Amino acid sequence: MTKYQLFNKIVKKQSFLCIGLDTDIRKIPSHLLKEEDPIFSFNKIIIDTTQQYCIAYKPNLAFYEASDINGLISLRKTIEYIRENYPEQFIIADAKRGDIGNTSEMYARAIFDYADYDAVTVNPYMGEDSIKPFLTYSNKWVILLVLTSNKGSCDFQLTVDSMGKYLFEKVLQKSKTWATDEQIMYVIGATQTKVLSNIRKIIPNHFLLVPGIGTQGGSLKRVAKYGMNNHCGLLVNSSRQILYADSSKKFAEAATQEAQKLQLEMAEYLAKYVH
Amino acid sequence: MTKYQLFNKIVKKQSFLCIGLDTDIRKIPSHLLKEEDPIFSFNKIIIDTTQQYCIAYKPNLAFYEASDINGLISLRKTIEYIRENYPEQFIIADAKRGDIGNTSEMYARAIFDYADYDAVTVNPYMGEDSIKPFLTYSNKWVILLVLTSNKGSCDFQLTVDSMGKYLFEKVLQKSKTWATDEQIMYVIGATQTKVLSNIRKIIPNHFLLVPGIGTQGGSLKRVAKYGMNNHCGLLVNSSRQILYADSSKKFAEAATQEAQKLQLEMAEYLAKYVH
Repeated sequence: MTKYQLFNKIVKKQSFLCIGLDTDIRKIPSHLLKEEDPIFSFNKIIIDTTQQYCIAYKPNLAFYEASDINGLISLRKTIEYIRENYPEQFIIADAKRGDIGNTSEMYARAIFDYADYDAVTVNPYMGEDSIKPFLTYSNKWVILLVLTSNKGSCDFQLTVDSMGKYLFEKVLQKSKTWATDEQIMYVIGATQTKVLSNIRKIIPNHFLLVPGIGTQGGSLKRVAKYGMNNHCGLLVNSSRQILYADSSKKFAEAATQEAQKLQLEMAEYLAKYVH
Repeated sequence: MTKYQLFNKIVKKQSFLCIGLDTDIRKIPSHLLKEEDPIFSFNKIIIDTTQQYCIAYKPNLAFYEASDINGLISLRKTIEYIRENYPEQFIIADAKRGDIGNTSEMYARAIFDYADYDAVTVNPYMGEDSIKPFLTYSNKWVILLVLTSNKGSCDFQLTVDSMGKYLFEKVLQKSKTWATDEQIMYVIGATQTKVLSNIRKIIPNHFLLVPGIGTQGGSLKRVAKYGMNNHCGLLVNSSRQILYADSSKKFAEAATQEAQKLQLEMAEYLAKYVH
């Protein structure tokens, strides 16, 4: 999917919402545990009832790996279900992978050859040759961790180098030379809006994947104000706020309401900032 | 497994060799492709014929994920085979994981609850709260990426901060306060021996996992000279050099020879440096 196609979907749906499928078997409504594949059953209902309000789904691989091989089968069924029924959706493997070249090549095969995701989140710590194998796939995206939403983002990402630059700025500056803005996006936490204007000076045209609104405390309003560009340039993720809005049999209605609420707010910002 | 138990194994076997199970279906001898589970068959033979020369195995998860769900089943069988037949072996999940707290908790469940590894490699970029969930398991180890063996290690790990310190030194200094040297080890590439003495000043007592000898060009001699401490403090990994020493039906003999050659060299260094 190209940047232009992604922008078209955003305009059409008046949404830049990405729904994080962090499906935790311990948190899904108890009546679903009777199903043959509770994780897939939960995902299927969430997808059917929220797809009109979002343009992307982001399964978090950890949550499926935590249910062992059965979890990975549920994940595969989820991806196939989205591909078959809602082919317009952009699908992100939230995997935070990255290793030496010959190993990243293997992760890329797993994610793009077998599972047909559109994008994968990658950790930059090991540098250029750990990212390159993911960039050899046409029409696929690398979403590089830059400035994350968690407390630990202060530990190393905010290290100031001898030139007065933060490490996360160096990650942006180096990596934007490795590929075009049709191949790389960046993870910037919604809790980091203080530096979002500065980030936009370095990468005015790239898409950002922004987690951290809702449970983690980030503000959608501020993300839109400081992060949007002329092609929207944002995929804002919400996971727990939607998936676990309600733990009863009415979870689907509650999830739909949360997704719709975010979409309506997003439509306002698109009208205000995207011309 | 405690540090003391690990050291005892090293002394008993006169080896600090870790064998990386980077099993690539495209590289294993062709006669094995007729087997029901070629990856497991290959691993089983490699393990049976090398186990007397090594103290640890390190499956690289990417290589199994690249063969999809069948690959993960082969991996599980491999771990179970080692546990049943060679319970003295230390097993490392080379996974390079790491994410916000609730997600790292899920990766930790996958690796320690379901698969019963002794240790997991973790990426430090997201900071303390991304590491902590892996540290809540007793008798399990986190092996944190610090200074890797690849060319891209220069991109960010060697960033000099405003205090004149490398980023990788900051990772060592911060992370050593997060847990004891009975819970954390560090990945230092064998190609990085120039700074190994300085690293030992910061962490004199920690175990290091050292990849990068053989195919990647690192020297075992230099690693031992600059990296050993009184409890050895090293697990030196070799993968391709052993696994793919020969591509014919004689691959097992060739692998055994390579492993034995490394073990004999290691015994020399143990005699020389460990008192």
